[in-house]
Amino acid sequence: MGRAAREAAAMLAQTDTAAKAAALRGAAGRVRERAGAILAANEADMARAAAAGLTGAMLDRLRLDNARLAGIAAGLEAVAALPDPVGQVIGEWTRPNGLRFTQVRVPLGVVGIIYESRPNVTADAAALCLMSGNACILRGGAEAIETNRALHAAVVEGLADAGITPDAVQLVPTTDRAAVGAILRARGLIDVVIPRGGKSLVARVEEEARVPVLAHLDGVCHVYFDRSADPAKARAVALNSKMRRTGVCGAAETLLIDEVLPVETTRAVLGDLLDAGCELRVAPDLLALDPRLVPASPEDWGTEYLDAIMAVATVPGVAGAIEHIARYGSHHTDAIVAEDDRAAERFLTEVDSAIVLHNASTQFADGGEFGFGAEIGIATGRLHARGPVGLAGLTTYKTVVRGDGQVRAP
Amino acid sequence: MGRAAREAAAMLAQTDTAAKAAALRGAAGRVRERAGAILAANEADMARAAAAGLTGAMLDRLRLDNARLAGIAAGLEAVAALPDPVGQVIGEWTRPNGLRFTQVRVPLGVVGIIYESRPNVTADAAALCLMSGNACILRGGAEAIETNRALHAAVVEGLADAGITPDAVQLVPTTDRAAVGAILRARGLIDVVIPRGGKSLVARVEEEARVPVLAHLDGVCHVYFDRSADPAKARAVALNSKMRRTGVCGAAETLLIDEVLPVETTRAVLGDLLDAGCELRVAPDLLALDPRLVPASPEDWGTEYLDAIMAVATVPGVAGAIEHIARYGSHHTDAIVAEDDRAAERFLTEVDSAIVLHNASTQFADGGEFGFGAEIGIATGRLHARGPVGLAGLTTYKTVVRGDGQVRAP
Repeated sequence: MGRAAREAAAMLAQTDTAAKAAALRGAAGRVRERAGAILAANEADMARAAAAGLTGAMLDRLRLDNARLAGIAAGLEAVAALPDPVGQVIGEWTRPNGLRFTQVRVPLGVVGIIYESRPNVTADAAALCLMSGNACILRGGAEAIETNRALHAAVVEGLADAGITPDAVQLVPTTDRAAVGAILRARGLIDVVIPRGGKSLVARVEEEARVPVLAHLDGVCHVYFDRSADPAKARAVALNSKMRRTGVCGAAETLLIDEVLPVETTRAVLGDLLDAGCELRVAPDLLALDPRLVPASPEDWGTEYLDAIMAVATVPGVAGAIEHIARYGSHHTDAIVAEDDRAAERFLTEVDSAIVLHNASTQFADGGEFGFGAEIGIATGRLHARGPVGLAGLTTYKTVVRGDGQVRAP
Repeated sequence: MGRAAREAAAMLAQTDTAAKAAALRGAAGRVRERAGAILAANEADMARAAAAGLTGAMLDRLRLDNARLAGIAAGLEAVAALPDPVGQVIGEWTRPNGLRFTQVRVPLGVVGIIYESRPNVTADAAALCLMSGNACILRGGAEAIETNRALHAAVVEGLADAGITPDAVQLVPTTDRAAVGAILRARGLIDVVIPRGGKSLVARVEEEARVPVLAHLDGVCHVYFDRSADPAKARAVALNSKMRRTGVCGAAETLLIDEVLPVETTRAVLGDLLDAGCELRVAPDLLALDPRLVPASPEDWGTEYLDAIMAVATVPGVAGAIEHIARYGSHHTDAIVAEDDRAAERFLTEVDSAIVLHNASTQFADGGEFGFGAEIGIATGRLHARGPVGLAGLTTYKTVVRGDGQVRAP
């Protein structure tokens, strides 16, 4: 599969935007045509999963219905409409000797995607890799194998209609875990592996990988209210950062409050969260503000709840917030609410996270909200790509040098 | 050391350009002051190395003299004069909801440098890491330990004069190989490892590393003469690409000649190389052109000689050259000599190498020649940085989002 993907990647790198977009639109059409077969396969997976005792949340991730399938097809068309990053010029300069340098985006090559039970990843990842000129090898969860096979068959049929080899999007047909190890060790055949799933999957990938990995780890996100915070913005940003969706990596887990923030603002913010059904684990000096508050334990700082639970601490101003985040944060996404621009700029500069926000919700940590159109994930490492990874993050660059016979001095 | 480096990195990330530049100029001054001690330490290393039976080339890499030491000091000052990449804005856009996005360069954090006998790497790597706001942990070759200790002492003295902690530039004081393993496994403490040395070192690093690696592998570089090549440019580019310096990674190893290139041009080019003392291992159809030519064996294609030896093949035009390079090249640096711009553009687009050149010598594959001022190495991987890595390659980025209370829709 790796060798076939390598050959397909060489072709895809030279495939123009129109052909890639047509292939993805064709794939969307085939997914709609084959809806019956795909949903039947999904029912088989669901039955097997239920028999195996999967829980409600896991079953929901696995489940497809007409609406979700329509979303998958629309997603393929949405990626087809995105600007093609391949060939985009990202740097240009000329040297005194007349050499003209141009840095242009080129595909990474072969991308391995290792994911769990969500079948939509099969189509989403295939679309993003194809549009960025990459071949991909997909290895989904065993519980979704029938659904993934049916989805994959529809997608490659759409590609074939547009004259693109099925080797451009390959699905590992087996469910044995050895296949994952083979992907992680395929140096020279696979250029990067992207794990999409829970912490145990990502941890295994990071431990075993001999190929580069673009991984998503913890999102312990903070919201800090500076003494200069506007009360209305504070209430809106805190409630949305925590409660819009509690299970996403950009959901805030800890609220940091400037110790000299007016107590009415603090009481109002905590009241909003409590009224919305959020459990608040607070520092001792806040406990008296509301009978529904519970005391925080040391383990609460730095915990990624991914649930309607939030830790709340007071800090001595922006310096204290920066120090708390450096100690307990995960360098993912952190926000400050402040009207004092000097405090805001200090926070934005000194907090070492992939995404830092001023007077905006941490839940904007998303490729779509960044304007990337779609994302393959949010990278928490520091190399290559940091934060949401869209089509550009699936490319590298080459340097083209144009001369008229220049040679280098001894 | 890793924890101390992590703390130093947090400080360095907030250190302004003037302070970093002053520290490097101070380090240069201290290196000049301590020249006697550094050269004495180097003599001790040289004596030990000679007794251990090191060969001439290895001894020469280890050797320091007044001129080389002056070069090291001047190198520190040169890096101090480079533009600071930290804080540089690499992207800016605004979303319809009014959120303003800014992507700014920030340091990688802690960089581990593993190198061999050249003591100048101690100063060069320290300077590039410091100027890009990174702390570094240096692990040089055992044979250079005394020299590296003396150089390092001078450098950190210069930093201390400028108020920068010595933890910003740490040298592993021991010579046991276990230290290398510890660096390679220090995930969370070291953000990237850069090996500087021969293939066996790089191979070990790539095999053992649990932290990201920016590595330099083979440089099997090609020069292709298209049928439209200008004879004078062909002769100049071929001679310089191979013979300017045969031991550098950008030195050409294989010459590809369009089978319909006029034979006089081919004879003249091969004559130049032979006259310059280059051994030419050629395809059968070229053997008759000069009595000094020797037949190539299959192993010659794809061999990195790093010596005055070159393989020469004929190919059926630019398509044949692209195919040969895809099969035998190492994706490092490849050049076409052609007056036909269509042939040139096809080569520049379809050859998948970090650097592709038109009518210029492959020996321009160098950070200095790119205008980077200095380089920490040439990356042959596809992620993060590709080709010469200067100060910008030692940074990552953060996304700063400025709003006025925006929250994300459900």
